[in-house]
Amino acid sequence: MKILIAPDSFKESLTAFEVAEAIEIGFRKIFPHAQYCKIPMADGGEGTVQSLVDATQGKLIQCTVTAPLGNKIDAFWGLSGDGETAFIEMAAASGLHLVPMEARNPLKTTSFGTGELILNALNYGVKKIILGIGGSATNDAGVGMLQALGACFLNAENQSLGYGGEQLIHTAHIDLSQLDSRLAQVQIEVACDVNNPLCGETGASAVFGPQKGATAQMVQQLDAALAHFAEKVQQQLGINIANQSGAGAAGGMGGGLLLLPKVRLKKGVNIVLETLNFSAQVQDADLVITGEGRMDGQSAYGKTPIGVAKTAKQFDKPVIAIVGCLREDYEVVYEQGIDAVFPIIRQLNSLENTLRSGKENLISTAQNIARFYQLAMK
Amino acid sequence: MKILIAPDSFKESLTAFEVAEAIEIGFRKIFPHAQYCKIPMADGGEGTVQSLVDATQGKLIQCTVTAPLGNKIDAFWGLSGDGETAFIEMAAASGLHLVPMEARNPLKTTSFGTGELILNALNYGVKKIILGIGGSATNDAGVGMLQALGACFLNAENQSLGYGGEQLIHTAHIDLSQLDSRLAQVQIEVACDVNNPLCGETGASAVFGPQKGATAQMVQQLDAALAHFAEKVQQQLGINIANQSGAGAAGGMGGGLLLLPKVRLKKGVNIVLETLNFSAQVQDADLVITGEGRMDGQSAYGKTPIGVAKTAKQFDKPVIAIVGCLREDYEVVYEQGIDAVFPIIRQLNSLENTLRSGKENLISTAQNIARFYQLAMK
Repeated sequence: MKILIAPDSFKESLTAFEVAEAIEIGFRKIFPHAQYCKIPMADGGEGTVQSLVDATQGKLIQCTVTAPLGNKIDAFWGLSGDGETAFIEMAAASGLHLVPMEARNPLKTTSFGTGELILNALNYGVKKIILGIGGSATNDAGVGMLQALGACFLNAENQSLGYGGEQLIHTAHIDLSQLDSRLAQVQIEVACDVNNPLCGETGASAVFGPQKGATAQMVQQLDAALAHFAEKVQQQLGINIANQSGAGAAGGMGGGLLLLPKVRLKKGVNIVLETLNFSAQVQDADLVITGEGRMDGQSAYGKTPIGVAKTAKQFDKPVIAIVGCLREDYEVVYEQGIDAVFPIIRQLNSLENTLRSGKENLISTAQNIARFYQLAMK
Repeated sequence: MKILIAPDSFKESLTAFEVAEAIEIGFRKIFPHAQYCKIPMADGGEGTVQSLVDATQGKLIQCTVTAPLGNKIDAFWGLSGDGETAFIEMAAASGLHLVPMEARNPLKTTSFGTGELILNALNYGVKKIILGIGGSATNDAGVGMLQALGACFLNAENQSLGYGGEQLIHTAHIDLSQLDSRLAQVQIEVACDVNNPLCGETGASAVFGPQKGATAQMVQQLDAALAHFAEKVQQQLGINIANQSGAGAAGGMGGGLLLLPKVRLKKGVNIVLETLNFSAQVQDADLVITGEGRMDGQSAYGKTPIGVAKTAKQFDKPVIAIVGCLREDYEVVYEQGIDAVFPIIRQLNSLENTLRSGKENLISTAQNIARFYQLAMK
């Protein structure tokens, strides 16, 4: 019997690898001789680098980069075990959590640090980059990132644009000739789960600006700046980023990335599934176990367990989910390929103690599922 | 397929019948054509009368009786659907919850009201009485109960003993000649899950006295009174209640009951199992589902789910438990016939909200178990 264990992390409690390990421990008590295949999963959001590093026996690489407000910080990215792929989270260099609450201002914040992470990865000779762009503090259409990689954005006086979304309104000339030439050989897969366009009512500034500190007035200013930038890109490079689905992701980072030679925007969980060769592993599995910290009605929209379930169902495999908590309207996941869901909470307790009991509760739940599985198979 | 659902109540949330109903609702979503047999269970403690009434389509009978401190209160007992059996909880007439905290004093409290419940049941012509003796406020060796049924306990001046455990020290003459004659024809089955003797270090007064309000000095006084009473019983009736296992239950009620002609002390859950003819129902079941509000290491000692599981295992049936919460050391239940356990809590919440979500969480858990059962059987 082969059990495939492919959970997301349980945020603030356990990494995806730790979740998979705990589930295996519980199952092994009942099925000690089964074959266990653990694939720590992610959806391109927080924890994706750790999961991919764990799954490929890779390592984390530390480096110093430019934070959203221009100061230097220690950041990290992940190198796959075979050294061929870099795993990067934009939030590690340009994340909102790196900016103190009172200083959050997307007029000023730059994505430059994310470009430095990419540069660092190129220096390691990777052939492919997986880039997650969630949780950013920026609204600069990825201009900072592009600058770090060699692109030039000049104003009417031929001066380089400074940091921050407010600068884009001054874009006059775009020159990509100095872009790092290695980018032509390296495929960048961008985990992008939103369809927002660059500008307008559903654009980057209006939808994501406020949570990054933008006032209503700033939203208007930023939206105009992005529109101006897109117009210049269209005019000078012939690339239409304004109407591209997903261009509005991460403060327009989704759009800016399209100026690079080999970029694809894809659903995060699908990138992870492909990277980890999930399809090949699931084919001979007898049972697939996935999970996440919190499952609810929103889980049906492209999160990790659904990605796992949909792929597993292509091979008609049974799929169960073990979850930290199970909220309203979760039943929609049944239609997405999850056959049954089991929450792990065993008793009321403080959030802190509950998070601390995560491993123990997972083992207990997995053991009981395994016990029932054994019974039912008789 | 036949699913036998035999849970205890979830205290403060749902009666055993409501628990069984919710489990059936969840299972029916997946197995609409299965045969469902619901047996609301109990272990002789709180909720036993309600469960037995529900299970036998009986009814509750209201009557006014004497409370532990002598005042009159409304109490109840249950009459089975066929009118042949009475279900009585001592706590309904003589329970600790009926005495205000500051007035709790086992020197004074009487079990008289419990005798009145028995008398009321006799008036209905029942042929059998199931008596649960948990939760009492008394330490009077059931003398009050016996007085209500016609027994005479006189002091050296040939005056009747008054109410309360302190009176027993004055016992001089015991006269059972006026005991209600119908008791000779009516079998009384007493649900008694403790083995404590009447007196001494593990006796009624020392072990249960303090929780009923006895000080250390009172414990000594009560223990001496019970010992004196037992001596008189031995001398005048030739019945040894002092060393009888279980005589110390319910402030010596277990001992006092032995003065009646047809009394048996048995494990509560076994009485309920026999009364509900559980063995006959389990023989052709494919799956047995039990449960209780809280399962922990103590659950292994004769509580409802274990009683259900042990009987089910005589017929080699799979048994799962669905529980309100699952506490430390619960794994011991595996050795007692429970194959797997599933807690129903889906998220952290206040106790009040959690108790209020009991039905919804039960349905959800049952549905997921049924979904997994269907999968695993494939």
